Amino acid sequence: MICMGVTASAPAKVIMFGEHFVVYGEPAIVLAIDKRAYARVEQRKDGKLFFRSLNLSLSGYFENGNFKVEEGDAREARLRFEPLKCVVDKVLEKSGERVGLDIEVNSAIPVAAGLGSSAATAASVAAAVSALLGVKAAKEDVFRIAFEAEKITHGTPSGVDPAIATFGGALMFQMDTGFRPIEVKCEIPLVVGDTGVNRSTRVQVMKVRGVMDRHPHIFRFMREIAREIVLEALEALKRGDLEALGELMNLNHALLYGVGVSDESLEWLINAARKAGATGAKLTGAGGGGCMIALAESERIGKVLEAVQTAGGRAFIAKKTDEGVKIEQG
Amino acid sequence: MICMGVTASAPAKVIMFGEHFVVYGEPAIVLAIDKRAYARVEQRKDGKLFFRSLNLSLSGYFENGNFKVEEGDAREARLRFEPLKCVVDKVLEKSGERVGLDIEVNSAIPVAAGLGSSAATAASVAAAVSALLGVKAAKEDVFRIAFEAEKITHGTPSGVDPAIATFGGALMFQMDTGFRPIEVKCEIPLVVGDTGVNRSTRVQVMKVRGVMDRHPHIFRFMREIAREIVLEALEALKRGDLEALGELMNLNHALLYGVGVSDESLEWLINAARKAGATGAKLTGAGGGGCMIALAESERIGKVLEAVQTAGGRAFIAKKTDEGVKIEQG
Repeated sequence: MICMGVTASAPAKVIMFGEHFVVYGEPAIVLAIDKRAYARVEQRKDGKLFFRSLNLSLSGYFENGNFKVEEGDAREARLRFEPLKCVVDKVLEKSGERVGLDIEVNSAIPVAAGLGSSAATAASVAAAVSALLGVKAAKEDVFRIAFEAEKITHGTPSGVDPAIATFGGALMFQMDTGFRPIEVKCEIPLVVGDTGVNRSTRVQVMKVRGVMDRHPHIFRFMREIAREIVLEALEALKRGDLEALGELMNLNHALLYGVGVSDESLEWLINAARKAGATGAKLTGAGGGGCMIALAESERIGKVLEAVQTAGGRAFIAKKTDEGVKIEQG
Repeated sequence: MICMGVTASAPAKVIMFGEHFVVYGEPAIVLAIDKRAYARVEQRKDGKLFFRSLNLSLSGYFENGNFKVEEGDAREARLRFEPLKCVVDKVLEKSGERVGLDIEVNSAIPVAAGLGSSAATAASVAAAVSALLGVKAAKEDVFRIAFEAEKITHGTPSGVDPAIATFGGALMFQMDTGFRPIEVKCEIPLVVGDTGVNRSTRVQVMKVRGVMDRHPHIFRFMREIAREIVLEALEALKRGDLEALGELMNLNHALLYGVGVSDESLEWLINAARKAGATGAKLTGAGGGGCMIALAESERIGKVLEAVQTAGGRAFIAKKTDEGVKIEQG
């Protein structure tokens, strides 16, 4: 059998509405965006599982349960590749085969920025290995495998990242009920701006918890606002009303600002985006640095991008994509 | 009769909590601070009412119902002095006399910054003229007269500015029930920072109205938060808990940020104050420029002042004062 290898890809995510309050049971809206992680897999004869990350400049292999680094920092490489090894093991298990593989990943998604790079990478590895080995893998299967990998990376993830990476599109997520696809009637032209400031999700989550502990009544009303914003956003997405969506993003950002998870680096980029004509802008994800998103009419999006870049953000234009995980070439 | 003239003074105000939402019936907390406006009055023989503002470099007189400017822009001078003439007329009416007066005012309160300079000036003129003419004027009378003058300056004012200028201390104000003194168990060391950005109260009020019109449900919860902040602040003032007060100021500012009445000039000063160790900071008054206040422990207040000044604010340290309108010298 001659097999030239398979490439698969999966999209990044942005949280458009509801971060942090999702922890307290309120709904969130999450989008897949057209930045993707790629995985290319080929068989190798020696039985090793060899991993290489082009974007992180790391490589190494697993042999008899041990990890050997070849490029980059050993600890860092192990941290990145262990979840991917878990993905490969699951697929190998399903296939009943025991083969060596070259797995090369390359992510166009900024890493550790809250954009779901690790989940997208895991989903694309799952899809590529399945296709290479002829294992039938429905999207549900890819999701479950990528979710398992996320648990290694993030402890107790919500499952939002692997869901978006697998299914694409726009999802509403809620702790109790999980996720469901939502109707979107418009292009959603976004600028994603990375402050470059390193954030600790745990620290930000504790800040919000502190506000709840010290001001339970105020926090209750904040939760109500968070929920109402998502409900109104669902309607605005259905209508394709960018003006309303932008204002809801601003309101959502004020709420996050109120619980203390914005910071100067975020405010700086957000202000720049608003002044350049964004209909709305907010932090996305955990905050305290990390990324912001700005929404603008298509004809304005270039100006907003420029403004966020000039303000010092590493920024790119992104659109919602309905393409979840997929095989790029067989 | 030899009369050498009388000097009176009255304090400035800051809104500590609740601005804008007060329009919708929620409570606000207002403080008198130790910046004062002064009025010195003397009789003159020619029957003219001669006004001079030292801080505005304006002067002119009323004679037979006509205004003649002597120093500065005629329109500006008339605008400033007409409310004060109304004050003088009320007191003359009470006295039954018809005399000429030299009225010299000097305000240490930044003008048109939402700090109640015009009400403090009116209250001090009312008190000084009353004392000069031997008219018995209880504080209630001074308040009523200053309130009438405010109606000329501001159209439909709430009465908060003349109330604080007259009675001093800390007041809770609510549209339905008016104002009542509140218990404060601590010094309240504030930095007041003026952005120098000119604001239109009407424009800011319309912004808030727009949020209410477009997002009535969200706005309802915002009102609940505004009310809850004031209720918690009343407790914190009673306890003398600067830490809690500061956090409530931050939450209140987030709310004002949410309804769109903050701006970059305010954010800039507020961030500077927080970074310098303020326990909390917020815009005060209408927003969209104008002033911010920051709260800090006494030993930190100098650092916060410096930070706000370095950030470009015209800033000063202020404390709550219990001295309302008073005669400085007989």
